[in-house]
Amino acid sequence: MLIARFIADGQARHGVVEQDAIWVLKGSPFDSLDRSSTAFPLSKVKLLAPCQPRKVFAVGLNYLSHLGERQEPKDPGIFLKNTSAIIGPQEPIVLPTGVPRVDMEGELVVVIGRRARNVSPQNALQYILGYTCGNDVSAREWQRNDLQWWRAKGSDTFAPLGPWIATGLDPSKLRLVSRVNGVVTQESGTDLLITDVAHIVSFISQHVTLEQEDVIYTGTPGQTPPLTPGDVAEVEISGIGVLRNPVKGA
Amino acid sequence: MLIARFIADGQARHGVVEQDAIWVLKGSPFDSLDRSSTAFPLSKVKLLAPCQPRKVFAVGLNYLSHLGERQEPKDPGIFLKNTSAIIGPQEPIVLPTGVPRVDMEGELVVVIGRRARNVSPQNALQYILGYTCGNDVSAREWQRNDLQWWRAKGSDTFAPLGPWIATGLDPSKLRLVSRVNGVVTQESGTDLLITDVAHIVSFISQHVTLEQEDVIYTGTPGQTPPLTPGDVAEVEISGIGVLRNPVKGA
Repeated sequence: MLIARFIADGQARHGVVEQDAIWVLKGSPFDSLDRSSTAFPLSKVKLLAPCQPRKVFAVGLNYLSHLGERQEPKDPGIFLKNTSAIIGPQEPIVLPTGVPRVDMEGELVVVIGRRARNVSPQNALQYILGYTCGNDVSAREWQRNDLQWWRAKGSDTFAPLGPWIATGLDPSKLRLVSRVNGVVTQESGTDLLITDVAHIVSFISQHVTLEQEDVIYTGTPGQTPPLTPGDVAEVEISGIGVLRNPVKGA
Repeated sequence: MLIARFIADGQARHGVVEQDAIWVLKGSPFDSLDRSSTAFPLSKVKLLAPCQPRKVFAVGLNYLSHLGERQEPKDPGIFLKNTSAIIGPQEPIVLPTGVPRVDMEGELVVVIGRRARNVSPQNALQYILGYTCGNDVSAREWQRNDLQWWRAKGSDTFAPLGPWIATGLDPSKLRLVSRVNGVVTQESGTDLLITDVAHIVSFISQHVTLEQEDVIYTGTPGQTPPLTPGDVAEVEISGIGVLRNPVKGA
């Protein structure tokens, strides 16, 4: 099932996508997936980021193909992204002035379905509502030079998310592809995550209570491409869809 | 004016503290400070953290007295704390197992009153509703060894906040005192902040949109004391009050 958040008739709603239609849900998908009898043509709505998390986690250095010369961290390399950096499909990524290089990072994103504290890897997947695509936009100079990554990974528009949440997937059997202007720049199976989804959720939940709608960017593979104004950045994951964002200058 | 969030008659409310009473506000203090004709005795309510931010920023290395051998960062050393680590007055700080030392850090905390993006230092104070006390609880080993500070500064209960928001203060003329079990452990004037409140708010707003209820921990002075189960940690700021939290083991 594909669960979207969208604007139609000037109102933000949740709905289930089926072919060219979105069926409006009666309430929040985090409570129930009951659908109403109202549908909109998919082409007539504006998709939003599919959830409104109070916390955005991410995992650094989680594919061998991305590590390069760097050593694998002893524990998963978790960090926080800024919630207000989230943008939806088609919203522009704005490149800040004063930094030489901003890269895109295509990633599989976990959407938490219910409160999780101290859960085992064996049970962790039960706390997940579904999966979406994310772009962990990164300003490398700030990432290298700042005390922490608050603006390197959290500047406004640096957290594209969408196009919707897909349920019922096996997170270890997905194909992740990034493209800039239609040219493939990153490509990997999610079976190559160093710390898999169940162990990421379990590990975070040992320290921090995960809540409904929280999201976790799970890491990026290979070499990450730089973005320049006028580019179109895409993250596509099998079983989910394509997250597409134009890029512009500040 | 002192603005508290509290539970009375089983319901969370905002109110204005005057002597031994809390006068209930008609709505959110971020919209209006109109008070109703209902009051509760202060001794009969349970105080909560005074706001529910979607983002918690903090500033590292912001008092010379705390720097020690470390160099002052070129730009303010901003980082994100985890929103779900927030606890209110009297709620216990829980020391995690598996780390040898957890310190308290008494800090002046800024509460943002309205959306701020790209504001100048000259105008920054206009975007602040008021100030409260914060304890930036820190697990030093994780702070040293992890890729980022997500659990070092963001484990559950690591962000005590309160007891209420004080309006109308000059943030450069406050006295900050921390105590463990009644013994003074940190003491400084807030005039000694390396980056002052106006410049912190302005700097963050160049990169990230600050929103109503967001908070900023402004940094800690001097040497930070370790906490052990059974301790009582206090942060007191002149014109605000005392934030008091007991400490317990996991």
